[in-house]
Amino acid sequence: LESRAVALPVSLSSPSKLSIERQLVDQLRRLIKHGALFPGARLPSSRMLADDLGCSRTPIVAAYDRLVAEGYLLSRPRSGLQVATRMAASPPARKVSRGEVIGLSQRGRELADTQQRLGLRSAQMPGHPSIEGFPFELWGNLCTRAWRRPTSALVWGDDPAGYLPLRQAIAAHLRMVRGMVCDAEQIIVTSGTRHGADLAARVLLDPGDQVAIEDPGWPAWQVLASHGATLRPVPMDDEGISVEGLARLAPSARMVAVTPSHQFPTGVAMSHRRRLDLLDRARKQQMWILENDFDSEFQYSGEPLSALRSLDEDRVIYLGTFSRSMFPSLRLGYMVLPRHLVETFLQARSTIDGFPPMMLQPVMAAFLEEGHLARHVRNMRRLYKARHASLVAALRRHFGDRIEIVPTCGGLTLTVMLRQGCDVALARDARACGLSAYPFSATAVETTPRPGLVLGLAELPEDHVDAMVARFAALSAPASAVGMSLPA
Amino acid sequence: LESRAVALPVSLSSPSKLSIERQLVDQLRRLIKHGALFPGARLPSSRMLADDLGCSRTPIVAAYDRLVAEGYLLSRPRSGLQVATRMAASPPARKVSRGEVIGLSQRGRELADTQQRLGLRSAQMPGHPSIEGFPFELWGNLCTRAWRRPTSALVWGDDPAGYLPLRQAIAAHLRMVRGMVCDAEQIIVTSGTRHGADLAARVLLDPGDQVAIEDPGWPAWQVLASHGATLRPVPMDDEGISVEGLARLAPSARMVAVTPSHQFPTGVAMSHRRRLDLLDRARKQQMWILENDFDSEFQYSGEPLSALRSLDEDRVIYLGTFSRSMFPSLRLGYMVLPRHLVETFLQARSTIDGFPPMMLQPVMAAFLEEGHLARHVRNMRRLYKARHASLVAALRRHFGDRIEIVPTCGGLTLTVMLRQGCDVALARDARACGLSAYPFSATAVETTPRPGLVLGLAELPEDHVDAMVARFAALSAPASAVGMSLPA
Repeated sequence: LESRAVALPVSLSSPSKLSIERQLVDQLRRLIKHGALFPGARLPSSRMLADDLGCSRTPIVAAYDRLVAEGYLLSRPRSGLQVATRMAASPPARKVSRGEVIGLSQRGRELADTQQRLGLRSAQMPGHPSIEGFPFELWGNLCTRAWRRPTSALVWGDDPAGYLPLRQAIAAHLRMVRGMVCDAEQIIVTSGTRHGADLAARVLLDPGDQVAIEDPGWPAWQVLASHGATLRPVPMDDEGISVEGLARLAPSARMVAVTPSHQFPTGVAMSHRRRLDLLDRARKQQMWILENDFDSEFQYSGEPLSALRSLDEDRVIYLGTFSRSMFPSLRLGYMVLPRHLVETFLQARSTIDGFPPMMLQPVMAAFLEEGHLARHVRNMRRLYKARHASLVAALRRHFGDRIEIVPTCGGLTLTVMLRQGCDVALARDARACGLSAYPFSATAVETTPRPGLVLGLAELPEDHVDAMVARFAALSAPASAVGMSLPA
Repeated sequence: LESRAVALPVSLSSPSKLSIERQLVDQLRRLIKHGALFPGARLPSSRMLADDLGCSRTPIVAAYDRLVAEGYLLSRPRSGLQVATRMAASPPARKVSRGEVIGLSQRGRELADTQQRLGLRSAQMPGHPSIEGFPFELWGNLCTRAWRRPTSALVWGDDPAGYLPLRQAIAAHLRMVRGMVCDAEQIIVTSGTRHGADLAARVLLDPGDQVAIEDPGWPAWQVLASHGATLRPVPMDDEGISVEGLARLAPSARMVAVTPSHQFPTGVAMSHRRRLDLLDRARKQQMWILENDFDSEFQYSGEPLSALRSLDEDRVIYLGTFSRSMFPSLRLGYMVLPRHLVETFLQARSTIDGFPPMMLQPVMAAFLEEGHLARHVRNMRRLYKARHASLVAALRRHFGDRIEIVPTCGGLTLTVMLRQGCDVALARDARACGLSAYPFSATAVETTPRPGLVLGLAELPEDHVDAMVARFAALSAPASAVGMSLPA
């Protein structure tokens, strides 16, 4: 990784009125804006740059963090820091105010603000799968098999629901791995969970409608607000979203959006009793349930819980994705719809974007039909379970009772809560030690943010996890001091 | 094709109170609803079924047409009639009215109604490319090359603008084939023109905003209305959209959506003078221009015209697609944005669906970089030009002055206008003779529909086009009688 980093043409003036951090930020910003640092260029590690410049790592880490926050740099798993593509060489705010140019719409401004406020880059969210052991050789061969002499169904396929054999394979897969009974007619192929949520919002919500969401919760539910719905945060407890809170805080919500298998960010699996209560409430309140079932494939312990969709086929819109069981850039998901909604969703989809791209669909269909996904998920479950256990053990060993590990049955992330301190700074320390970490408080909407960390576990190298956590524990030891390094 | 058709378990009672057409419609509807005819099943040709049943083709064609109109059957180029996927075995209206089920949103109902009213299945729209001669062998090999040992950029790539090498290749391609200067930073990869229009509407339009569209025009602009914009149809003349009409009918429009290279459905290429007038008007009115530049690759005669985008980089949102130069199921498009809008569009896209699926992007990038698309387009242009000429010649020969051929410089469709008659019935006759045809009147929004046909030319077999047109001319000869067979 280090060998692919660019040489940074920066230098420090000393003595200077400006801090080292400030000097670095200014110089790097300028280099990126002017295109001297090209998009995608990899930055040297803070250690490497500290050696070059003859200074400590602290101001370098701080400068890098600021540039990430400003969007100049991206922090990517496995490839370190890179220059962000879209900032380079085109300072966007510069050219806007030519008197003649019309403004954005109100909605457009809100969309952009949302994203900026959240500051969410999916790369910074933990929960990426590991791609070790993904059978790319086989995947490549399946691609060729489908496309070298494609059937006319592949070349002309324009079904707004997606390629039928893929939908059949998804139905069979859900029956097998999730115990869910549905048929291919109820499935729509999407380009991911967010795309499915977007479609559901367009068909089921009007501007001003209320949508209840879990608080803290999955930030990407913001897509529902992009159609003018009002999001109503409802507190979580250790069985899932509070149904009493839902009745009190969002009594007229037309939809509730949940992640019941492995709630993001708490890791809580919604209890069976809570599932029944939620469905009961949804019936009383005439409310749709949007079920994002991610990580249900990766359960390590406990009784498997039925999907909400399996408990009520008429009221639940089920969202699934292959991005976490395959690899992140795949962007292939699906929704399972109540039978009476299928026709309307297909008509809406026809108007909006026609039909899903075919390229990927026969390849995924074959991968499912031939049992490769089932096998891969089995292997990954074993691997993740071991990594989960190593991470828990290392955290217990090196942090003791400074942290509280939230009990969970599975998933690609582990959540730990802190007694005190600033979790933004702590997440930064964790990342500096090679861990994938996200501050828990950043996922809170209205609840008072407790400090905590959501840690990615899929990519942890078992041989090094103990050393990494030890380093992290040492770095963050003066827990009260950590709070002071919070960027202004 | 015929060999893959299913055997239809239908029979005729004779004598019967019901017409043959009615008997067939009833029996086929039942078979499809109950799943005895499975989704995707191919129907025998009307000739084949007429032989089986010992009746004439006329009632069979009529029954098939009705079932297509009702959505039970799909008519697909090169594969004939098929059972529609989503009707089979799941009568959608049946289960809706369980008192407890909540209704759709107002917006959802409108979306579905729009699609139903238009009755548009992309398969029925002419303008599909020919896939003869597409180098699938090579395409399959490029897939394998990209995916058997993918780089980490492919596996992790999450840029909301799309894969950088693809955007660079698109920029180079546009420079080469379209003389357009833009850079990769201004390009966003989409899943087609409609997807790009959808994104533009979300960023640039608020509910209630006016959007001017060409009348008659491209039906898929309805996607703009799905966000609450009001579409204002503006008449076309032989130089393009009427700018005088625009000023009069949509004086406060915030956007105008046009297809200037080869207007759908008239085939008119917007004159250079008109382009300048439109841009002038857009500046005065502070209006965005949405330019759908389809078919610009396939110009057979005349001077090439600059894209609107090349004449004004700050006001035009340019939409391009590869679905017409490659193959229809590809669903890969792009937009070229004014520099000052890029950042906002990327933020919006991050919220809405994250980033485009990676699978296809490196393959397309290689296909462009290695010059395969340029070569394929060159070959296809030659082929289409010849087919265009044969179709024009055959129409002149067999229809004489019963029709008027709209002069055009290129494109995958040819538009002919009729002196009188019902173009819906005529399009049906044309399809029965193997031609791809769409009634001109179905594309009119508010203008009085003139009868006419939009004919697909890309797939016409040159050796048979004369015979096909001759048959069509004979079938439609009693032009006034045709009007009577219009379905109720």
